[in-house]
Amino acid sequence: MSIKRRLLYAATALSVGAISSLSQANEPIQPIEPVKEVNVALAELGKKLYFDPRLSKSGFISCNSCHNLSMGGTDNLKTSIGHNWQQGPINSPTVLNSSLNLAQFWDGRAADLKEQAGGPIANPGEMAFTHTLAVDLLKSIPGYVHEFRLTFGNDEINIDQVTDAIAEFEKTLVTPDSPFDQWLLGDEDALTADELAGYKLFKDSGCVACHNGEAVGGSSFQKMGVVEPYQTNNEVEGRVAVTGVDADRFMFKVPTLRNVELTYPYFHDGEAQTLTEAVDIMGRLQLGRQFTDGENAQIVAFLKSLTGQQPSFQLPILPPSSENTPPPQPFE
Amino acid sequence: MSIKRRLLYAATALSVGAISSLSQANEPIQPIEPVKEVNVALAELGKKLYFDPRLSKSGFISCNSCHNLSMGGTDNLKTSIGHNWQQGPINSPTVLNSSLNLAQFWDGRAADLKEQAGGPIANPGEMAFTHTLAVDLLKSIPGYVHEFRLTFGNDEINIDQVTDAIAEFEKTLVTPDSPFDQWLLGDEDALTADELAGYKLFKDSGCVACHNGEAVGGSSFQKMGVVEPYQTNNEVEGRVAVTGVDADRFMFKVPTLRNVELTYPYFHDGEAQTLTEAVDIMGRLQLGRQFTDGENAQIVAFLKSLTGQQPSFQLPILPPSSENTPPPQPFE
Repeated sequence: MSIKRRLLYAATALSVGAISSLSQANEPIQPIEPVKEVNVALAELGKKLYFDPRLSKSGFISCNSCHNLSMGGTDNLKTSIGHNWQQGPINSPTVLNSSLNLAQFWDGRAADLKEQAGGPIANPGEMAFTHTLAVDLLKSIPGYVHEFRLTFGNDEINIDQVTDAIAEFEKTLVTPDSPFDQWLLGDEDALTADELAGYKLFKDSGCVACHNGEAVGGSSFQKMGVVEPYQTNNEVEGRVAVTGVDADRFMFKVPTLRNVELTYPYFHDGEAQTLTEAVDIMGRLQLGRQFTDGENAQIVAFLKSLTGQQPSFQLPILPPSSENTPPPQPFE
Repeated sequence: MSIKRRLLYAATALSVGAISSLSQANEPIQPIEPVKEVNVALAELGKKLYFDPRLSKSGFISCNSCHNLSMGGTDNLKTSIGHNWQQGPINSPTVLNSSLNLAQFWDGRAADLKEQAGGPIANPGEMAFTHTLAVDLLKSIPGYVHEFRLTFGNDEINIDQVTDAIAEFEKTLVTPDSPFDQWLLGDEDALTADELAGYKLFKDSGCVACHNGEAVGGSSFQKMGVVEPYQTNNEVEGRVAVTGVDADRFMFKVPTLRNVELTYPYFHDGEAQTLTEAVDIMGRLQLGRQFTDGENAQIVAFLKSLTGQQPSFQLPILPPSSENTPPPQPFE
């Protein structure tokens, strides 16, 4: 290739890039950006805490138990298992890309990841510990004392620092570079014809009204059962529990559809085991539309193109307890 | 440095190496060798299976639940938590360096890691699954079907392959390069004076009679309570359950002391919470010797020098279930 041709080629590539940026700007879904501006020491500490079952009464349940980073940041159970094998009330939402949510939990009762992180630790049905016991425990572990000192520059350990660190780690759990994002960024070959047809159906039939933006969801509360009521034995009532407003009954945070291939089963009650089932129910109850089998399969194909790069990191090695560390109490 | 002096220097270094090899050969403990000859594809598959809770009835318990590689390959509980929060009968032994054991389980009822790996999956008190269900489940997961085909070169999945893969992964879980091993290999500065004094006590008082070799244990069955009987409410009787021979009552496999700093609590019943307590009890019951506080502390210092390099690898990402995968049954 002559220099002249190379320059011409570069200019063309540039203009293609500019065009695809433009077309991307017109789509209701935006690509996930890789995470920037991470406090690395804080996130590394948070990673250890995230994997540490000593933050539970039993010494057996960690954040990763129900938001398993080997499994799409969920437990893939209808509803979660808590302390003493208690059956949780609700399906464990994925931690992946959760920093993009307008609020945390299905009912949005936590404003952000930091506020969320303290919840399960002290929930008697989940980790069944207390913030005081968790902090006392960490203070008894020399490796943590050292790492908190390095990270925060003081000799204190408190729950604020604990949840700060966990939230900072969770900020890193974004999943960019899905086939769909590659397509959004201009790679026309990144999607199959079925995936593209599914995306067109997803837009044209109104799914994007709620499932939009970078997380393809997570940006609003919506009623479960708009056209038809949703039938479930699950007793959770959604956002009304936070606001007390009757109109918020059965309003739930719209879940992200990023990595939805990995986050089965679906809905707040986990009653839809497969994507096929979930798409069918959403079509009928939310949009009043019965998708044909072919349409359903195309939408499912599109949804599977939303699986991004999963978080990739070394399994953390936890600092050992000391002789002063209170032992866990799994059976008391 | 002249070439002559360099040669002289090299010759000296060589002879120091030879001397330290000699002195190491005279010690009752040998350094752990880094693992060689691993079937990488098989071990990578085994790593996924090791972390996969879908091999349990509940979908919640994986090998890593009770042999947690963030925590010395144990659960750090007195006795383990199984399906439906059942209290296990015995303390979970570390998976680290378990390939060096003469047999597996406290009573040695499995000849090797491969035989061991099938046990917990089908144990109603642990993962509460069956081998048939586990294999059927794996067959329903396209990512596993693909990986088994790549690894074994055929279209079959059976429990033999599953346990082969898990055992191959476990073979990689050796922990070389502890401070004590550095000392064994000739680095005189690798141990403190207390650690060395502790090692001398450990040898001179007879601990090495059982805790010797590469794993500092794991090479014989011995009676728990030689000089004095061991008092416990735990009902497990040890090797007699395997042999039926009355003389094997309270005979247990001598546990490895590698990484013992991380594998608390101690003994088959997990009743010794700290190393101090474990050393004291072992001294009195096995050797008829009451260590002073100072001696105890030195032995503990030596034992902590047995903490080696922990396994270092990326958290595995598990292949997702398909629409044909039977859902887990945590509450049935």
